[in-house]
Amino acid sequence: MATDREYIIATYLIQGKHDFHKKAKSIAVGLTAGTWTELPETRKKQMAAHLGEVIEVTGLAPGKDGEPRALCKIGYPLRNLTPDFPALLTTVFGKLSLDGKIKCLDIEAPDSFLDAFPGPKFGIEGIRQKLDVSGRPLLMSIFKQCIGMTLDELEEAYQQQVDGGVDLVKDDEIFFREDYAPAEERVRIFKRINREKEERTGKKTWYAVNLTGPVTQLADKAKRLAEQGADCFLLNAVPYGLDILHRLAEDPDIHVPVMAHPAFAGAVCASDDYGLSSPLLLGKLLRWAGADMVLYPSPYGSVAMPKEDALQVAENLRQPSTVHRPSLPSPSAGIHPGLVPAMVRDFGTDLIVNAGGGIHGHPQGSTAGGKAFVEAIGAAVKGRPLEEAAQDSPELKQALDKWGSIT
Amino acid sequence: MATDREYIIATYLIQGKHDFHKKAKSIAVGLTAGTWTELPETRKKQMAAHLGEVIEVTGLAPGKDGEPRALCKIGYPLRNLTPDFPALLTTVFGKLSLDGKIKCLDIEAPDSFLDAFPGPKFGIEGIRQKLDVSGRPLLMSIFKQCIGMTLDELEEAYQQQVDGGVDLVKDDEIFFREDYAPAEERVRIFKRINREKEERTGKKTWYAVNLTGPVTQLADKAKRLAEQGADCFLLNAVPYGLDILHRLAEDPDIHVPVMAHPAFAGAVCASDDYGLSSPLLLGKLLRWAGADMVLYPSPYGSVAMPKEDALQVAENLRQPSTVHRPSLPSPSAGIHPGLVPAMVRDFGTDLIVNAGGGIHGHPQGSTAGGKAFVEAIGAAVKGRPLEEAAQDSPELKQALDKWGSIT
Repeated sequence: MATDREYIIATYLIQGKHDFHKKAKSIAVGLTAGTWTELPETRKKQMAAHLGEVIEVTGLAPGKDGEPRALCKIGYPLRNLTPDFPALLTTVFGKLSLDGKIKCLDIEAPDSFLDAFPGPKFGIEGIRQKLDVSGRPLLMSIFKQCIGMTLDELEEAYQQQVDGGVDLVKDDEIFFREDYAPAEERVRIFKRINREKEERTGKKTWYAVNLTGPVTQLADKAKRLAEQGADCFLLNAVPYGLDILHRLAEDPDIHVPVMAHPAFAGAVCASDDYGLSSPLLLGKLLRWAGADMVLYPSPYGSVAMPKEDALQVAENLRQPSTVHRPSLPSPSAGIHPGLVPAMVRDFGTDLIVNAGGGIHGHPQGSTAGGKAFVEAIGAAVKGRPLEEAAQDSPELKQALDKWGSIT
Repeated sequence: MATDREYIIATYLIQGKHDFHKKAKSIAVGLTAGTWTELPETRKKQMAAHLGEVIEVTGLAPGKDGEPRALCKIGYPLRNLTPDFPALLTTVFGKLSLDGKIKCLDIEAPDSFLDAFPGPKFGIEGIRQKLDVSGRPLLMSIFKQCIGMTLDELEEAYQQQVDGGVDLVKDDEIFFREDYAPAEERVRIFKRINREKEERTGKKTWYAVNLTGPVTQLADKAKRLAEQGADCFLLNAVPYGLDILHRLAEDPDIHVPVMAHPAFAGAVCASDDYGLSSPLLLGKLLRWAGADMVLYPSPYGSVAMPKEDALQVAENLRQPSTVHRPSLPSPSAGIHPGLVPAMVRDFGTDLIVNAGGGIHGHPQGSTAGGKAFVEAIGAAVKGRPLEEAAQDSPELKQALDKWGSIT
């Protein structure tokens, strides 16, 4: 590999009856200079700086179906593209995504490229400072229902969740219609509840409002909601396209953290053989794009991600970087209080414990459900057994009786 | 199925050891009202209008790996969402995309929903009128190289392609860097060549310029390029997100047709088991979004799409609709003059014959390559055998000698 050039390096899992070295070469040439061997010498000189490079080809044992497999690392000269997601995805997995059984597992980029991506505006430390929470995971609650609810009903549901002591409450990601409860109204009313709670108890709470509408108006809408006091935006980053997250995160006039929802991400990363890997899309790329918090399937629930992948997503979101702040992972779905010690053991404390059914399904309702989680988190970070903590907390006891605990 | 409500209906292929009726019900409820059986009666009344509906569950024979399979059609009440792609994709395949082995094969929507999507601004008739081409497929040429070329070199390559008699010349989709040859300069210079050609011969030619940059600035950039005389935009619609195509197509100030490139589409639709089907993404959704022309893998080349899918993409792009104009399909890759009769037989004449190597690889160069295609298209629509037409055209003869022909 030439060392005088900077590359974007993509790692692919390729399957099929290929001469993998030849295949890798054809990718490196085809997606950069286009052609090579037939070029005249003068043109070769001119194009050399733009030519892709095969970095490594590693044969693998055949897959489940007996097909030959290899990992191929291809380097794309930095000078071929602009530092944005459409250019990056088109360059490393544009035409190639349609070229047989191939999955893009990872992308590595030099700091000079990453510098142009904003990364999280606040990062883990920034979020912790703003929310005044340290030494423990954050706790988030999801509205049980959003669609079809009136503003009054949503307000009541919000109050119950805040009363349970959660740090954040988020909209359902499928909440788009604003006829009965416009986003600006929700932000205004829930902000008032947050303020009352803080004045009464000193505890801060955030409402993550679903940021929706035409992509061309999203930055303006974000600014309007920020003026209303929005604490946090929820964004369906994959259906919108990662570039708008990039643009929201880099906008100096939007001082609000963004939480990325993984809606539609399975269309891109659920297959073992095609698309992008989950750690790449939900870990690396969403962090580069500027998500302060990232929701994704936990390894615990019925909508589950393989544990290895779920841990790697968290690793990619949080690993030290001189370029980007870390993001808070929120491995979600199937979370109940009895799981919290296992989550902390698996993921550490820099994460968001996010629950819907595990809060609203509490025998005593949503407020008790929040309290049970608060106790479980407090116990887990102290290494105190949940059963012991439950002796001081009827809410936690009831939760453990209902859902059990995992040790 | 209730008939007093309008639904978006999504068809899924679901695989695994499920009770498929139960699974379908859980999707219909989970992605709309959230919960149902435990709701109090008053709330059920209020939420009934928002509740999803199982339209149909059809068991299928087990797949290759012996897993049980079923097609499930789920109806999502129209009133649950807004008419835009982020809302549509999040509603019908948001969380669900992460929920096991599931592929979204089709989405049907009532006209009242589709009315809010622009569809193609010009459509097939509009494009034909503007280009003054009727009764035959359009012919498009792709630059052999874009990256690393100077403006002078691109101008020369453009001139060669125009001289061959193609109707359109398109940028490489991986052409992002504008240091040496900014898009506005390309549009200005190639427009001049187009004008000279038309003054000399009466023949119109279009240049499809790659529309790149931040998504938040794309509409402004499109307007700037339109002012410079841009004939046509190339857009990497999937990496950018379909909503920006929607917004460009509905913008009354942008009087320029858009050609959608399928870059990255394989990440979403190449798997048999996950993601969206090709006919849905590249056919239906791109047409709703407003693509006047859609490039996608032909069934003929090495980067191939199964023929059934390729035909269904074309069908979805062109089928009669009272809401949207039809789009021109361009099944691409591996196209040479000898394939043209087969393409016309398979796809009819409302299509774009798009070639890169099949033009530039002609023994006499790119201009001769274009001429060979012009002759092949002329013969194919008359039902004249290519071998016979080649007797009057040395360029076509050379092409057939090199690539052969398919009958």
